[in-house]
Amino acid sequence: MPTEDQRPPWPVNAWYMAAWGHEVEEDGILARTLLGQRVVLFRDAAGAVHALEDRCCHRAVPLRLGKVVPEGLKCGYHGMIFAGDGRCVSIPGQDSVPPQACVRSFPVVERQEFVWIWMGDPAAADESQIIDYPWNDDPEHWPHQHAVFHIDCDFMLLIDNLMDLTHVPHVHTKTIGGGPVMAQVNARIDVERKETGVHFVRWILDSVPPPTFARSAGWGDEVRVDRWADFEYVAPASVLQWTGSLEVGRGAEENREQPGGFNIRLYHGATPETEDSCHYFWCAANGHKPGDPAVTETLFKEVADTFMEDVEFLEAQHQSLKETAGMPLLDIKHDIARRPARRALDKLMARDARIAAE
Amino acid sequence: MPTEDQRPPWPVNAWYMAAWGHEVEEDGILARTLLGQRVVLFRDAAGAVHALEDRCCHRAVPLRLGKVVPEGLKCGYHGMIFAGDGRCVSIPGQDSVPPQACVRSFPVVERQEFVWIWMGDPAAADESQIIDYPWNDDPEHWPHQHAVFHIDCDFMLLIDNLMDLTHVPHVHTKTIGGGPVMAQVNARIDVERKETGVHFVRWILDSVPPPTFARSAGWGDEVRVDRWADFEYVAPASVLQWTGSLEVGRGAEENREQPGGFNIRLYHGATPETEDSCHYFWCAANGHKPGDPAVTETLFKEVADTFMEDVEFLEAQHQSLKETAGMPLLDIKHDIARRPARRALDKLMARDARIAAE
Amino acid sequence: MPTEDQRPPWPVNAWYMAAWGHEVEEDGILARTLLGQRVVLFRDAAGAVHALEDRCCHRAVPLRLGKVVPEGLKCGYHGMIFAGDGRCVSIPGQDSVPPQACVRSFPVVERQEFVWIWMGDPAAADESQIIDYPWNDDPEHWPHQHAVFHIDCDFMLLIDNLMDLTHVPHVHTKTIGGGPVMAQVNARIDVERKETGVHFVRWILDSVPPPTFARSAGWGDEVRVDRWADFEYVAPASVLQWTGSLEVGRGAEENREQPGGFNIRLYHGATPETEDSCHYFWCAANGHKPGDPAVTETLFKEVADTFMEDVEFLEAQHQSLKETAGMPLLDIKHDIARRPARRALDKLMARDARIAAE
Repeated sequence: MPTEDQRPPWPVNAWYMAAWGHEVEEDGILARTLLGQRVVLFRDAAGAVHALEDRCCHRAVPLRLGKVVPEGLKCGYHGMIFAGDGRCVSIPGQDSVPPQACVRSFPVVERQEFVWIWMGDPAAADESQIIDYPWNDDPEHWPHQHAVFHIDCDFMLLIDNLMDLTHVPHVHTKTIGGGPVMAQVNARIDVERKETGVHFVRWILDSVPPPTFARSAGWGDEVRVDRWADFEYVAPASVLQWTGSLEVGRGAEENREQPGGFNIRLYHGATPETEDSCHYFWCAANGHKPGDPAVTETLFKEVADTFMEDVEFLEAQHQSLKETAGMPLLDIKHDIARRPARRALDKLMARDARIAAE
Repeated sequence: MPTEDQRPPWPVNAWYMAAWGHEVEEDGILARTLLGQRVVLFRDAAGAVHALEDRCCHRAVPLRLGKVVPEGLKCGYHGMIFAGDGRCVSIPGQDSVPPQACVRSFPVVERQEFVWIWMGDPAAADESQIIDYPWNDDPEHWPHQHAVFHIDCDFMLLIDNLMDLTHVPHVHTKTIGGGPVMAQVNARIDVERKETGVHFVRWILDSVPPPTFARSAGWGDEVRVDRWADFEYVAPASVLQWTGSLEVGRGAEENREQPGGFNIRLYHGATPETEDSCHYFWCAANGHKPGDPAVTETLFKEVADTFMEDVEFLEAQHQSLKETAGMPLLDIKHDIARRPARRALDKLMARDARIAAE
Repeated sequence: MPTEDQRPPWPVNAWYMAAWGHEVEEDGILARTLLGQRVVLFRDAAGAVHALEDRCCHRAVPLRLGKVVPEGLKCGYHGMIFAGDGRCVSIPGQDSVPPQACVRSFPVVERQEFVWIWMGDPAAADESQIIDYPWNDDPEHWPHQHAVFHIDCDFMLLIDNLMDLTHVPHVHTKTIGGGPVMAQVNARIDVERKETGVHFVRWILDSVPPPTFARSAGWGDEVRVDRWADFEYVAPASVLQWTGSLEVGRGAEENREQPGGFNIRLYHGATPETEDSCHYFWCAANGHKPGDPAVTETLFKEVADTFMEDVEFLEAQHQSLKETAGMPLLDIKHDIARRPARRALDKLMARDARIAAE
């Protein structure tokens, strides 16, 4: 059985985020390396997004240097035009286009502001497996902002980080990690393995809210809250987060769906770029003061600041793992959610092996 | 038979440009990596240019850190002196110089402002194979300027680019590629294979001159011209270009050697530095207004600007070819001159194999 | 028998400088790659310096991102604490610490302002082998300053440089290399092989002092001196230098321990970082005008300037040796001290092989 270091680096028969929809502008081109392959995304005249191999079949020039034309994407070097399905539809200077004149195209679905891509066997692509994230369709109640960061680490180190809240009081002392350390370390965590990944909820009851929560909710020093952190990993690359607090006495444990308090939802997507880097897509929605754009803006900025505290660790960890490949690692009790997340990923990789064998 | 990706990267038994003569100053040193080897060029007291391996035989210190002395090139670390033929002629602190105290020297010929180098078997070096470029000896009728650019691509991608004019209307829209696209794409091209390479002439008759031509010739909007582009590739690394236009009615097809109009000659030399980079030597001569230094200067600047439009493509293409080595490429009709150029190169490589076997 | 290029890159069963003592501040952390391994040094509450593998045993995060706490060094990601001997003494969220929770620790000795580290077999570590450098304990008579430079070369090229004074008139013309070249090249050198390395003394009698000496001693143009350069290499990585001059007639050859004149002592330590880089630790002590802090400061600056003249050569030499690995090198007469130094290093490597075999 292969060890963690020998495993193939990621499942390919899965939907990954390729971009936020707004990143692929009208008549625009977006080049991005995804799962180790150079891909060019473009939006055609009808508004549909397509994804092609970023390499003209003539002389290998990247198609990202071309431009969108009514028939598709035109290579910038000699003017060959490729339709959204990868077929070449025009070669300047010759009347006929041979059938081998084509580039690989990838299934793409644009939905709920996400652009999803399937880079495995096209026959296995199943749109019903795409994550439903309805909050992006409800900007009135969940106003939100998106971002994409480039990180020099294996994408799963980012997932590990999100599956583990014990790092919060150490890494995030200036943002979300404030307050008593031991209350966080010893908080109750309910972990549930799911067919698609793992789900956990951590509750810290009757405690002082961390600085970011208090600032956003407008709480004074005397307020104590019941605080939850709800994370669901959906393999291979998504984490849905719901974090909030209500003042003690409002019955948060029974019903978190109450107005006010502090209440945010985050989507996290980690798409591998190479074995040593990933794209981190995230969006943060303000559920407690949806009518106040300044709160939405501040929330976005706080999450970004928090994340910057993680980046130094993730990139240093990745380098260290590379440099010491083969040396043992030691699981501890607080890997309680991280470990089943890794097993859900392994299941997808096993599925890849079956699809490849068929 | 090896595929294009498996071929040795360049012929070695051939003359390549090492430098423009003026780059090797009096008593000066010029270090340059040529065909994957570090070479140091220097000009001796008598004015002759020599080329040595850039590595002292004592402790491997680069000779480029030394200086020119009357006896030759003195290593900057311990003062050993090497004559132009590579023999050590002095070792400080010892009376005798053993015969193994020497570095490799390379045949060099300085002629017509070029410094040519032969990096293969010295016994095979034949000066009669050096390209004759008489225009560099005639600054009165062909005033010119030189340049050398460093490009991160296989040198043959630069040759490919020069062997193909169909990229012009796509890549060079702001400079030489202006005017109707289809006139250029469908222009008549006469291609002639030669023993030493390939020669082609493209004619576009009775057409609007491109912006650079019109600016340089001083033509107004109403002028129509007969326009030629004459390119000769001489394997492995030279392209001689003659480009011009005369007003319709002056009989350009019968006689291009007429004063006025637009008339320039360019030498292009692409010397491999490494498998991933090359030195692009070029010079541009003004044949239509030789008495006007401003035209010579403008021509040089326009060619440089044009070339900058190519660099982005060449470097991206090189990266793409490396990343997708082994994937097929697809020839199109407009590779009509590029393909015989590659075959001329292959002939030189086959000759290398024969010389190595002897 | 392996050639120089095939030898293992350095002996491991030896004491190397890890740092100057002042670099590891109170409660401070210093991360440094030594002999190819990432090490984190820290000073505990009692003032003792410890060296640990810079990698937490949980998830491989570098310990340099942590902080010093009373119990030892705390990992910055999840808060595990490691004592100076490498044992984990605390894992947040769990009561017991399994025995495999530990990181490698390295023997460390802080003495005479040096922090020495032993990265080989701990059982072979013998403090009596540490170099005695009493001048660092005597700031009244030998005031001094320290530095550490990072150089991109094999550490032994730095030792080679110090074992060879013939480069001085070529490389150091602006500093210590002034004066007649041949007097330096032909100077008497007494070389003595020692059990631990090699010792040589070069005398230049009745000569003009070089500019740096004259400036520091306050000599006018008419002064002539007897000048010595005394170097001892102690394998693998130390060179003890004693350089000075006394006016002609003061009997320098019989007794160098006289006040005045020019009289300095330098310690040089070259610790490998990687096969392509090293840390150069040095300190320069003013023995001729110990009561004048400006002289100590100027001496330090002059040595630093001199060294900068060497760096260009060392880094270019290293690159050249890498690029031409396998090509022969040619010893000359002036390698008289360099060669036995290399043999002393080879002896330590042979000892490593015996220790590994046991």
